Amino acid sequence: MLRIDFANCLSSRVGDHGLEPDLLVPGSELHAAAAALTRKLAATKGTGWERWRLLHENPTRAAHTDAVESVASRCRGEFDNLVVLGIGGSALGNIALQAALNPPTYNLLPRGLRPGPRMFVVDNVDPSCFGAVLRYCESSEGGLKRTLFNVISKSGETAETASQFMVIRDILKKSLGNNYKTNIVAITDPAKGTMRQICDAEGFTTLPVPDGVGGRFSVLSPVGLFSASMCGIDIDELLSGAADMDTLCSRPELHQNPASLIATLLVTLGTRKGKTNHVMMPYANALYLLADWYRQLWAESLGKKLDTSGNTVYAGFTPIKALGTTDQHSQVQLYREGPNDKAFALIEVESFDSSNPAVPGDLTIPSGLGVDAISYLEGKSMTALLNAEKRATEYALVESQRPNLTITFPKIDARHVGQFIYLWEMVTAYAGLMLGIDAYDQPAVETGKIATFGLMGRAGYQKHKDAVERALTPTPHVWNG
Amino acid sequence: MLRIDFANCLSSRVGDHGLEPDLLVPGSELHAAAAALTRKLAATKGTGWERWRLLHENPTRAAHTDAVESVASRCRGEFDNLVVLGIGGSALGNIALQAALNPPTYNLLPRGLRPGPRMFVVDNVDPSCFGAVLRYCESSEGGLKRTLFNVISKSGETAETASQFMVIRDILKKSLGNNYKTNIVAITDPAKGTMRQICDAEGFTTLPVPDGVGGRFSVLSPVGLFSASMCGIDIDELLSGAADMDTLCSRPELHQNPASLIATLLVTLGTRKGKTNHVMMPYANALYLLADWYRQLWAESLGKKLDTSGNTVYAGFTPIKALGTTDQHSQVQLYREGPNDKAFALIEVESFDSSNPAVPGDLTIPSGLGVDAISYLEGKSMTALLNAEKRATEYALVESQRPNLTITFPKIDARHVGQFIYLWEMVTAYAGLMLGIDAYDQPAVETGKIATFGLMGRAGYQKHKDAVERALTPTPHVWNG
Repeated sequence: MLRIDFANCLSSRVGDHGLEPDLLVPGSELHAAAAALTRKLAATKGTGWERWRLLHENPTRAAHTDAVESVASRCRGEFDNLVVLGIGGSALGNIALQAALNPPTYNLLPRGLRPGPRMFVVDNVDPSCFGAVLRYCESSEGGLKRTLFNVISKSGETAETASQFMVIRDILKKSLGNNYKTNIVAITDPAKGTMRQICDAEGFTTLPVPDGVGGRFSVLSPVGLFSASMCGIDIDELLSGAADMDTLCSRPELHQNPASLIATLLVTLGTRKGKTNHVMMPYANALYLLADWYRQLWAESLGKKLDTSGNTVYAGFTPIKALGTTDQHSQVQLYREGPNDKAFALIEVESFDSSNPAVPGDLTIPSGLGVDAISYLEGKSMTALLNAEKRATEYALVESQRPNLTITFPKIDARHVGQFIYLWEMVTAYAGLMLGIDAYDQPAVETGKIATFGLMGRAGYQKHKDAVERALTPTPHVWNG
Repeated sequence: MLRIDFANCLSSRVGDHGLEPDLLVPGSELHAAAAALTRKLAATKGTGWERWRLLHENPTRAAHTDAVESVASRCRGEFDNLVVLGIGGSALGNIALQAALNPPTYNLLPRGLRPGPRMFVVDNVDPSCFGAVLRYCESSEGGLKRTLFNVISKSGETAETASQFMVIRDILKKSLGNNYKTNIVAITDPAKGTMRQICDAEGFTTLPVPDGVGGRFSVLSPVGLFSASMCGIDIDELLSGAADMDTLCSRPELHQNPASLIATLLVTLGTRKGKTNHVMMPYANALYLLADWYRQLWAESLGKKLDTSGNTVYAGFTPIKALGTTDQHSQVQLYREGPNDKAFALIEVESFDSSNPAVPGDLTIPSGLGVDAISYLEGKSMTALLNAEKRATEYALVESQRPNLTITFPKIDARHVGQFIYLWEMVTAYAGLMLGIDAYDQPAVETGKIATFGLMGRAGYQKHKDAVERALTPTPHVWNG
């Protein structure tokens, strides 16, 4: 089970920049507030946009894993390349699972060392990036015939994914003729919408984006599970990890409930101590892209404008991803001596033991160089160095009165990753309630979408194009050499 | 040449959250201040820690390019894998150049489509990550014999790089016997230090980390140029780009000097308008890791504690990397409705034309699907969609009074990347002077380094270990299920 050490968030460690321990004990205001939210969340579980909280429970769980495994077991051996086309919540979870649970060399490994096809997630409409992946797939052994495209879009109208889909459909048809449809698996709304309509018309295999599960809460649905399963990740263990964490996050006591604890710490540090930037800093490369997944969850769920008795309040915190030890040589100078506006979630891994033949376990720093200045490293393990550096950073942050907590993974495996995902989803649910905002909408994204429609000439959106041009022209302030 | 549009930083676009145009015109306070700094920087060019400003000028330029090409031309064909071992300024530039100027599929391409060896930069002591790369190199065709390790450390005492070096030296010796030294190229101090001593004793080929060039300003020295040259990047064009920009950044007028312009905008928005978070958001995957390089430059140079007549001031701004369009589906909700504490540098690319056979140029979104809701995309180019989304985001930010500027790359090539690098290095030099801080030191990093020595048992550092233990124990505030 994951563990959490939050001592460095308290005033006993970081003075006025931390919280008084009294704030958190039974009987305190924050303890009572958290307990009330735990009761509220127990009542709303599985309703409205909280249906993501059922993904690890039967019958949803069994229905999803059965459907995913049924498609994946058929496709896994048939394809050498898997290209995921999605963006935002239809990509970040897929990327995070792959980075966390498969080696960084995965795509380079020979098939014998790779449990599934090479995997590419193309979550942008950059033509060079998308084009390079397509060209690679075309030229790799077996070519497009051995390439599966996994299109993920609930509506099918997301401009990025729709345009990518239109490109690959055309290429596949030209290359494979009428057989092209076996090279597409779509994950979309099971009943309605543009992509559903296309899938029904063309006869693609589909998996569901379940009702009541928003994009950024969808990684443990088929949205994230299918590509993970294709690449040999144990999706059942992921869901068991979520179930572990659900049990813990239902406990009434603040200190016994990790989600209410972290949410209380981060929200209170944010609103009362000015720590409006929240840094997630794993000391493990594999977990860095989970910080990217968290970045969407935290930003898009909590960054909301509120009208409070006529006053506009801009709620939310800015999530920042960092990587230890790497960013000690890039960001820690700022983290210690720049504005004291940050709270940190450091992530530590106790053991890097591995049963994957492509990844050795821990490495020992060998003896024999015989140079005094660095001989202290000889015979030590690399994990020991990594974790000593993490502890040294924790100390350096405390010395500068920068509040931080540590989440410990006993090891990186699907079970613990599932725990971590569900933990932060629940932290987000708590934080939304604490801030008085709806964690499940994203109203501010609409303006840009509609303006794009206008600029791209979609019928009926001319006035939005005009509004953009009015707002951004004339542009006299251009520097051009 | 790069272009800059800063109209959206002005009050005419974003109200009170922008700057009055009067602030910037000739005769204004900021204009005079910038002009004074331009004169100061003209006087200090090439002295002290400003010797990075000579890297693109002869004789330094010719000496470096000759030395780099001499080693690279010998090694390029002899090795199939290049593993860079470095961290911070000895890695971020290397990673950024490779990502900007080679395709994302580079390591997967057959040798005929790849101008140099596969490239890995291992800038951490995560044993799984490092171990996976080593295991891959061992098992790839030709094995370690065909793997070149490029160790980059000025002193040789950086714990991460030293320990990595000790591991690979041992593995190479065991695998290749006395020939191991041909598989190592070190970039280090030309005259002194631990790594210099090791290289002299063992007979490694070396290239210099030049005097007076700090890590985060070293990408256009052999530190960044060697791995770039190995992978077929035109390093002469990089340096010509820097020279282009140097000329422009020497101009006295604020509006004609892009570095003084950007520094004036960002520092003034930061100190007078509360925009203490600075987001760099390229609309091009290839440029995303240049934002990571900028992140070190901006954070470590400017994040400094100042004592101003007895008051402690925490200077600096928090750099944040983001990617368009991807982060429109992750961060833009926060950027528009969260705290108005950010200034944005959007980056746009006009043309994705390519002469690289592994990368097609622009893609056209095909017709023929015939679905009304997305038919507006048919026949449009993907570049047009990408840049319409960028403009829509710019508009959405303006609507929310979030100041932003746009830097335009006519295309992504070594020349423009060199311009961009030198531009931001100069912006940083200006910003340091504007904030009254030394942009070239990093005093706050020492605490963690020394604490690590203590925790790793280095002789003479026991008291630092004791200090860590005293500060961080007892730890009663642990949540462990």
